[in-house]
Amino acid sequence: MDIKNKLDQLWINKAPKKGSFRSIFKYGDPNGFKHPNQRLISELIDKFNLSKKDFEKKETTGNDLVEIDIESKLNSDQIDRFITICGSENVSSKEFDRLKFSTGKTTEEAMNLRRNKVSLISDLVVHPRSKKEISEIVKYCNNQQIPIYVYGGGSSVNFGFYPEKGGLTLVLSTHLNKVVKFNELNQTVIVEAGILGPAFEKALNNAPQLYGAKHKFTCGHFPQSFEYSSVGGWFLTLGSGQQSSYYGDAGDLVLSVEMISPSGNIITKDYPATATGPKILDIIKGSEGIYGIIVELTWKIYKFMPENRERFSYIFPNWESAVNASREISQGEFGMPAVFRISDPEETHHGLKLYGIEDTIFDKIMSFRGFKPMERCLFLGTSDGNKSFTKNVKTNVAKICKKHGAMNLTSFPVKKWEPGRYRDSYLREDLMDYGIIIDTLETGVNWDNLHHIHKKVRAFVKSRPDTICMTHASHFYEQGTNLYFIFIIKESDVDAYIEFQQGIIDSIQKSGGSLSHHHGVGRMISKWMPEYLGKEQMDVLRAIKNHFDPKNIMNPGNQLLNEK
Amino acid sequence: MDIKNKLDQLWINKAPKKGSFRSIFKYGDPNGFKHPNQRLISELIDKFNLSKKDFEKKETTGNDLVEIDIESKLNSDQIDRFITICGSENVSSKEFDRLKFSTGKTTEEAMNLRRNKVSLISDLVVHPRSKKEISEIVKYCNNQQIPIYVYGGGSSVNFGFYPEKGGLTLVLSTHLNKVVKFNELNQTVIVEAGILGPAFEKALNNAPQLYGAKHKFTCGHFPQSFEYSSVGGWFLTLGSGQQSSYYGDAGDLVLSVEMISPSGNIITKDYPATATGPKILDIIKGSEGIYGIIVELTWKIYKFMPENRERFSYIFPNWESAVNASREISQGEFGMPAVFRISDPEETHHGLKLYGIEDTIFDKIMSFRGFKPMERCLFLGTSDGNKSFTKNVKTNVAKICKKHGAMNLTSFPVKKWEPGRYRDSYLREDLMDYGIIIDTLETGVNWDNLHHIHKKVRAFVKSRPDTICMTHASHFYEQGTNLYFIFIIKESDVDAYIEFQQGIIDSIQKSGGSLSHHHGVGRMISKWMPEYLGKEQMDVLRAIKNHFDPKNIMNPGNQLLNEK
Repeated sequence: MDIKNKLDQLWINKAPKKGSFRSIFKYGDPNGFKHPNQRLISELIDKFNLSKKDFEKKETTGNDLVEIDIESKLNSDQIDRFITICGSENVSSKEFDRLKFSTGKTTEEAMNLRRNKVSLISDLVVHPRSKKEISEIVKYCNNQQIPIYVYGGGSSVNFGFYPEKGGLTLVLSTHLNKVVKFNELNQTVIVEAGILGPAFEKALNNAPQLYGAKHKFTCGHFPQSFEYSSVGGWFLTLGSGQQSSYYGDAGDLVLSVEMISPSGNIITKDYPATATGPKILDIIKGSEGIYGIIVELTWKIYKFMPENRERFSYIFPNWESAVNASREISQGEFGMPAVFRISDPEETHHGLKLYGIEDTIFDKIMSFRGFKPMERCLFLGTSDGNKSFTKNVKTNVAKICKKHGAMNLTSFPVKKWEPGRYRDSYLREDLMDYGIIIDTLETGVNWDNLHHIHKKVRAFVKSRPDTICMTHASHFYEQGTNLYFIFIIKESDVDAYIEFQQGIIDSIQKSGGSLSHHHGVGRMISKWMPEYLGKEQMDVLRAIKNHFDPKNIMNPGNQLLNEK
Repeated sequence: MDIKNKLDQLWINKAPKKGSFRSIFKYGDPNGFKHPNQRLISELIDKFNLSKKDFEKKETTGNDLVEIDIESKLNSDQIDRFITICGSENVSSKEFDRLKFSTGKTTEEAMNLRRNKVSLISDLVVHPRSKKEISEIVKYCNNQQIPIYVYGGGSSVNFGFYPEKGGLTLVLSTHLNKVVKFNELNQTVIVEAGILGPAFEKALNNAPQLYGAKHKFTCGHFPQSFEYSSVGGWFLTLGSGQQSSYYGDAGDLVLSVEMISPSGNIITKDYPATATGPKILDIIKGSEGIYGIIVELTWKIYKFMPENRERFSYIFPNWESAVNASREISQGEFGMPAVFRISDPEETHHGLKLYGIEDTIFDKIMSFRGFKPMERCLFLGTSDGNKSFTKNVKTNVAKICKKHGAMNLTSFPVKKWEPGRYRDSYLREDLMDYGIIIDTLETGVNWDNLHHIHKKVRAFVKSRPDTICMTHASHFYEQGTNLYFIFIIKESDVDAYIEFQQGIIDSIQKSGGSLSHHHGVGRMISKWMPEYLGKEQMDVLRAIKNHFDPKNIMNPGNQLLNEK
């Protein structure tokens, strides 16, 4: 089919129109693109049985200008108050701004905005300049019962800051994005909550020049959303980075926080360990903005030593051997790889194309040695740390992989994977232009339930005809890992999509996986929470919420639902 | 002074009289002893300027029989109810039992009981046989407003289960001391909360025979109280073991718990990671029995590989170089030692005697090479894990120690230290027989405040004339460590002792250390908590307490004080 040879003409190659819906829902850099390559498109054409006709016209693009008229429910006295606090240049009641900062990165939002469909937006967007301003805002809003939602990097995939009860959206990344204090002795850095990944990492990498440090440092946290997510968001949603198996998850990387809440301001203790009762930090960790506003965080940093990084990859005969090897590595007590990722047969099938392994000498040897397509499984890994440590990890990984029948693919696939690690999200817009959806859901699993969950969730996804379902595990612990499901379907109906998505969440829940491994709860998953946690544990969270925020102004309805 | 040569005649060498006060306050095995050796006694004689007369008669021994008459405040209906639930053989209203299970291991308690001084005891001692019985007891007690205290191993050093409001003492170690489920795949084990260290570790070491496991395992948690403390207590007080730098603290080693509380029963999620809101486990962690009764715990286990253990020790020219090297090791990213302990000059002085280094060839070389007494500092370490890992840790430690001017003392001192690691507590009784107190206080510190805290606390301790104050750091993190102060004084007056002890806590607080690194809060430290945490954070803990236990029957007054 000749469409495969005319790919260049298929995709939108310029930034969305200013003021358009697309400028709001498009992922990342307005001028950033990662178009589907020929291999992927060929797959999709075959899978969805597409014809030239399907590519003649884009279904929806969302390039219309945002022209909506939704009155702010705040009165002029209230708006004036915020202007007094933050300055008029930091307050906007324009519909475009209110929509923009009410919108995250769910498929549902993109599908709706492509169709110019807007339901709720916040009443006012405010860009506070300091903790003091936030303190005043929280006090005033509590007094006036005005809800507050916080926008950090805007990459929520579960409606984490959707203004369901109207009110104020505070954008932290505009001004509160600085390094406050660098402490080489303690290997910590205090940052404002709105700082995004690249600025944070850049400051740490340049610590010798910026802070007179002896070493360069790294934050150790590299989620796919790294470029468009904030440090405060990482902590509040319990994010995990792509090197979490070595550095830990976001929750592990934070030593203390400063939070402003309706019931008072808190700076938690920053001791590396203390036995003085339940840690207030732990109580706040993962609360997704429903208790208060995190304004500063003390983050644990690590030495930046890219020169020590080892890269390795293997192909396993099947999923079971890949899982067994991964478990043996995770429980091997020789140190953990940093990037640590195994793909199931279907993801491996696509991954080998994507990383340029297909049709290479590797492919030929693999096939010759009996690693069969749609059975074989790809493992990608790196190790970070001291040179002797990274080498030792590599050596031990090699031994275990060999023992489980894997073939060494060298560092080549990792090197192909690395440059695109933050860019897969850019595929979404191109595909959705033609009614194809690529989305993800994920879960935390114990070793003894991994296969069951993988099978059950895949079975559900595959129960829909013509569905691609790729799965990987990429965050490892002694006791288990996560499963990350990427599914691609052809669907243009929002309701039909939501039904499908909810079915997947259902099947994760029923098969015994956690409702989320690192995407958080938000408003998308919250209705599963009561069954998941049970009444007694939901009541604990509600009691804490009620303590911090008795009038329910902080991100109301998020995580716990609004019902009591 | 000839007393030094007649040591054998000084110490009590047989188990305390049955039914005596001493049988209650004596540490550990009734027939277990670790008498002060000649070196220590010589030091004390010189330090406290003692004469033969001081050793002619023991001050107090506490060998009188417990003959007290304290009426139980429970009525016969209530007592009958507990007998109905647990069986009469598991319920005791005898004063001796009530005193025994109301008594922990503080110096204050021992000093008082030596003088037959008893203030409060619980009203009834109950040994429940199952979760179901505990559930019934909690319901009934909540209904009747009868306070409950839990006794695990009885080794609290801060009045953690002191029955200050009367009521019931539940002893969990009598029946609830079994392994419930062993899971090799997940590397976890579910245990009943009352199991003590040795039984737990023995079961894990024998996993192949007991559970048909492929490997032997270890619990990784070895506090000094290991032989007389329970797994539930480890978790609830946020304990740390002597190998915590590698295995983590008790709070890190628990994956989930089952808790019975007045407001309901909870089994927390046991995923290795999940982003579904604040973790209920974390909220309970460190709560010291004030929310409910922990009945079962899922514990993370590690492979038991003593054949891989490396042992090493070094002498540093001074405290500063020992601290600097320790920091470099902790931040070195080559893996952490398991035992990891540096002693300050005064502890080193005693340690070298204790571990038999004094007057050996090591001592001569040290002196020759300029490592001066009361300046030099001892480092002891081991590494656990995979063979390649333990070797690599040892090699890197050696490099760093050398760089900081240390001299290698081989594995000899560690081998001398290991056998006595759980036995130092036995010294207490012998010394107190002659009015000499040995006690400890400890704190968590960040690197940048370590020296300040060490100096300030030592200065306070030393402000009392004739005081020995030995300090070590033995739990290491990237961001800091702990300081463990051991002080020896001559004091027979309880009030004077308490005043001194409180002064030390004061100086820890004022110099910026955490109030406790791994001993917990209990009733001894709780009065410092409001200033330490501040009102806002105390209110959070109180709100959670109030949620779980609105009638304040669970260990009332512990950790948070009874004031509201």
